[in-house]
Amino acid sequence: MGSLSSPVDSTKPFNPIDPTELVVESSLVTNFIAEYYQTLEHRPVQPDVTPGFLTVQLPSEAPLASESVESILQDVYDKILPGLTHWQSPNFHAYFPITCSNAGLLGEMLCSGLNVVGFAWSASPAATELEQVVVDWMGKMMGLPQGLLFSGGGGGVLQGSTCEAVVCTLAAARDRALERVGDDMFNKLVVYCSDQTHFSLKKGSKLVGIRPANVKAIKTTKNNEYGLCPTDLRDLVASDVKAGFIPIYLCGTIGTTAFGAVDPIRELGKVAREFNMWFHVDAAYAGSACICPEFRNYMDGVELVDSFSTNPHKWLLSNMDCCFLWLSDPKRLINSLAAEANYLEGGNETMVDYKDWQIAVSRRFRAIKLWMVIRRYGITNLMSHIRSDVSMAKRFEELMLSDRRFEVVFPRKFSLVCFKLRGNKDDVPESVDEDCGLSRDSELTRELMASVNSSGKAFLSGVTIGSLFFIRCAIGATLTEDRHIEGLWKLIQEKADEICVDHDLEFRV
Amino acid sequence: MGSLSSPVDSTKPFNPIDPTELVVESSLVTNFIAEYYQTLEHRPVQPDVTPGFLTVQLPSEAPLASESVESILQDVYDKILPGLTHWQSPNFHAYFPITCSNAGLLGEMLCSGLNVVGFAWSASPAATELEQVVVDWMGKMMGLPQGLLFSGGGGGVLQGSTCEAVVCTLAAARDRALERVGDDMFNKLVVYCSDQTHFSLKKGSKLVGIRPANVKAIKTTKNNEYGLCPTDLRDLVASDVKAGFIPIYLCGTIGTTAFGAVDPIRELGKVAREFNMWFHVDAAYAGSACICPEFRNYMDGVELVDSFSTNPHKWLLSNMDCCFLWLSDPKRLINSLAAEANYLEGGNETMVDYKDWQIAVSRRFRAIKLWMVIRRYGITNLMSHIRSDVSMAKRFEELMLSDRRFEVVFPRKFSLVCFKLRGNKDDVPESVDEDCGLSRDSELTRELMASVNSSGKAFLSGVTIGSLFFIRCAIGATLTEDRHIEGLWKLIQEKADEICVDHDLEFRV
Repeated sequence: MGSLSSPVDSTKPFNPIDPTELVVESSLVTNFIAEYYQTLEHRPVQPDVTPGFLTVQLPSEAPLASESVESILQDVYDKILPGLTHWQSPNFHAYFPITCSNAGLLGEMLCSGLNVVGFAWSASPAATELEQVVVDWMGKMMGLPQGLLFSGGGGGVLQGSTCEAVVCTLAAARDRALERVGDDMFNKLVVYCSDQTHFSLKKGSKLVGIRPANVKAIKTTKNNEYGLCPTDLRDLVASDVKAGFIPIYLCGTIGTTAFGAVDPIRELGKVAREFNMWFHVDAAYAGSACICPEFRNYMDGVELVDSFSTNPHKWLLSNMDCCFLWLSDPKRLINSLAAEANYLEGGNETMVDYKDWQIAVSRRFRAIKLWMVIRRYGITNLMSHIRSDVSMAKRFEELMLSDRRFEVVFPRKFSLVCFKLRGNKDDVPESVDEDCGLSRDSELTRELMASVNSSGKAFLSGVTIGSLFFIRCAIGATLTEDRHIEGLWKLIQEKADEICVDHDLEFRV
Repeated sequence: MGSLSSPVDSTKPFNPIDPTELVVESSLVTNFIAEYYQTLEHRPVQPDVTPGFLTVQLPSEAPLASESVESILQDVYDKILPGLTHWQSPNFHAYFPITCSNAGLLGEMLCSGLNVVGFAWSASPAATELEQVVVDWMGKMMGLPQGLLFSGGGGGVLQGSTCEAVVCTLAAARDRALERVGDDMFNKLVVYCSDQTHFSLKKGSKLVGIRPANVKAIKTTKNNEYGLCPTDLRDLVASDVKAGFIPIYLCGTIGTTAFGAVDPIRELGKVAREFNMWFHVDAAYAGSACICPEFRNYMDGVELVDSFSTNPHKWLLSNMDCCFLWLSDPKRLINSLAAEANYLEGGNETMVDYKDWQIAVSRRFRAIKLWMVIRRYGITNLMSHIRSDVSMAKRFEELMLSDRRFEVVFPRKFSLVCFKLRGNKDDVPESVDEDCGLSRDSELTRELMASVNSSGKAFLSGVTIGSLFFIRCAIGATLTEDRHIEGLWKLIQEKADEICVDHDLEFRV
């Protein structure tokens, strides 16, 4: 084994896929990863490093001679791991979870090992067809309407990220509108969303050429549970149309980034239809929860969408990267994204050529990963995985509610708990819309978050909305168990105690 | 072992990253892949299947209960493999090679196992910094100018595909121009390329909103070796400018898809500077060859580019997916792609936040794959890998030239050999520009390609340019050895013999 994984033997012809070596070397990496998972909870979640820390440790030029896998793994251990934020740590609760699993890793290994490029049906037929099967499977698991599935006249594709899905559907919506009104009207095209929509919509709109001022974010309020208000939307669109603008695209969200809020899909869908806008629903994080029937109420009205996306790499154990995008009428996407080349024989109506369903031409065989994850665990286990995270989040929320020093700023819907410190017993704000002590609370809450994060024992992220700052505790890392949540709660209380002492705060019990 | 990889035990809590199971299960997959590589040359390169073949073999709904890894792998073997086009087969010579290696697979395993998301420096510092190190390493390996490296004031990023790189740089070029001329001039923006530029430029231009008629492809000729002629370009741009158009972007190519041709970079760069256009060079396939000094002459003038991209997943053993994009002034890219969010603390000048260097926000840890490949093999072995492929291509070209029935339609520059049949001894075309028997030749050449491909013993692809059809033999699959090239040549001769008999053709010897 030592000799097999030592530097490439210069007396033999160079063979970068010697199967015997592959078996030996991949077991080194697997053992490395297995040990990483086993020890992960004891590592600081965030590293204590400053910019440039790694660059100075590594040679500035690539090596001429080969090195052994062992020595490279040793460097990963010594130099890379201490500089990573450990997204797979059971104590990682920032952003949204990016979950992994054995099956996800096995699926990535198959994807990478087979290394086929199914850009067209003919370029690797089974890759395209497995993807069609898997997108229908997942659609059915979530209870999506037939019209979004291949079996019902729609269809779907696996992309890398929601951003790509948004860019592709924006382009399709734009081109459909320009066909109608002519491209002299380009600067009149308008995209609608809420102030809680993920910022990738703005980024994507700019990318496809929508004038930044024409991306209109409707203000949400606590009264509407930070959901996009259909009446406000309708009023704005109607007045824009009167002013000569052309509404082309509406983005609704199930599970917003800041709060985990849910837009009213059915009512938004009606407005989109009324004004002939493309209606996309971004369920990047919370879509996976909809494999459990008890969350499907949030999708009410989903039969009105033109497209719907969710990222199983977030909450469905599917490792980076993977985004499902379903469409009610894939031809409209293809019209925008198809491009013919003189070195490709054209497909026909019965074949799906996925190069015409995405930004890039080349593509990874992601379908085999999803197929592996779904089959290996089965719907039952995947549902219990979601429910277990939600149950931990519920427990954490209850703990928060039991301590007067904390305020849950938004009622939890999935596995995200949003909270802040109350600055003073005499000055408890009734609403996050008012700034009765909000700035003060925000300052203390920031201090709390910094203190938790710098302990290395947990990693939380926060959101600033106006003068309000709150902490988001996103529960769902694959390794997180009840005991981590109990530990997190103790840690937060301890840090809150310190802040109370430092700032001489008192609270009612 | 059997029990470990059997269906998830319902009496235990569901644990999708049990490290012990990971070791067992990943060895099943590694053995599967190792056996696949060992038997690959005996599989038909292209499957003989019709659309829908796989769909009917698979259940239309996902399973409720978990299944064992063995049973899933058995289905991969029985149902998926027979339906794949085997891009890793030593007999795959279509399109461009998409190479794999043990180190590439190990790197993907680390990427997927660590599963961090370095969208900003702070989101996983070592992921960002390793990427900075690796893009500088690769730049130096290829002899790119200092100005494109981080160490020289430029910088680079790892994206998934050339298409993404093109879209990002197009957006940056567009926004720089619009800032100058105002966005009322959107429809006046023009992008330039040659008729040999990869079709993803058209696709990408449309995506960022460039009017399709404003993507101008300059006709190449045999006289110019199918390179973009700087004089023709200059004339066209000058006349467009006179007509009120705004040139924004020029794409040059090193190693075109059809011929493996090379555009004259220095002369094009001068025209781009003269008209203040963004100059991108797409070296998706041939860039990797530039790690060998003898190919660097093709990059002459590269110090004039604004951006340069190459895909190590094509020719540098790096498995799907990976595209290096270097920029002389990354700020201009960031200006277009940066978007701030209220749940992300802003970075500062000393940090690279890669979400602002690409389309998506989330991203895979591709740098660790490249780092693994480059270190595991070292520059010396990587160079010998390129040279070995080029030497096989040279041998194949010589064999072609030794047989009067064949014509090499373009002098080989890298590892791509373009050829066709000559239809008749009395009617040998002197130039591919003339149609003295070209249509007839094309018909016979198509027949030859179909006959080779349907044998399952090799897979070639072809290109149609006007009435000319020729076959591209792209040599470079990782497993391809001299004996496969000899076998391919015999196969082609045999099929040509059959065609000669069928069509009653005679040839001078």
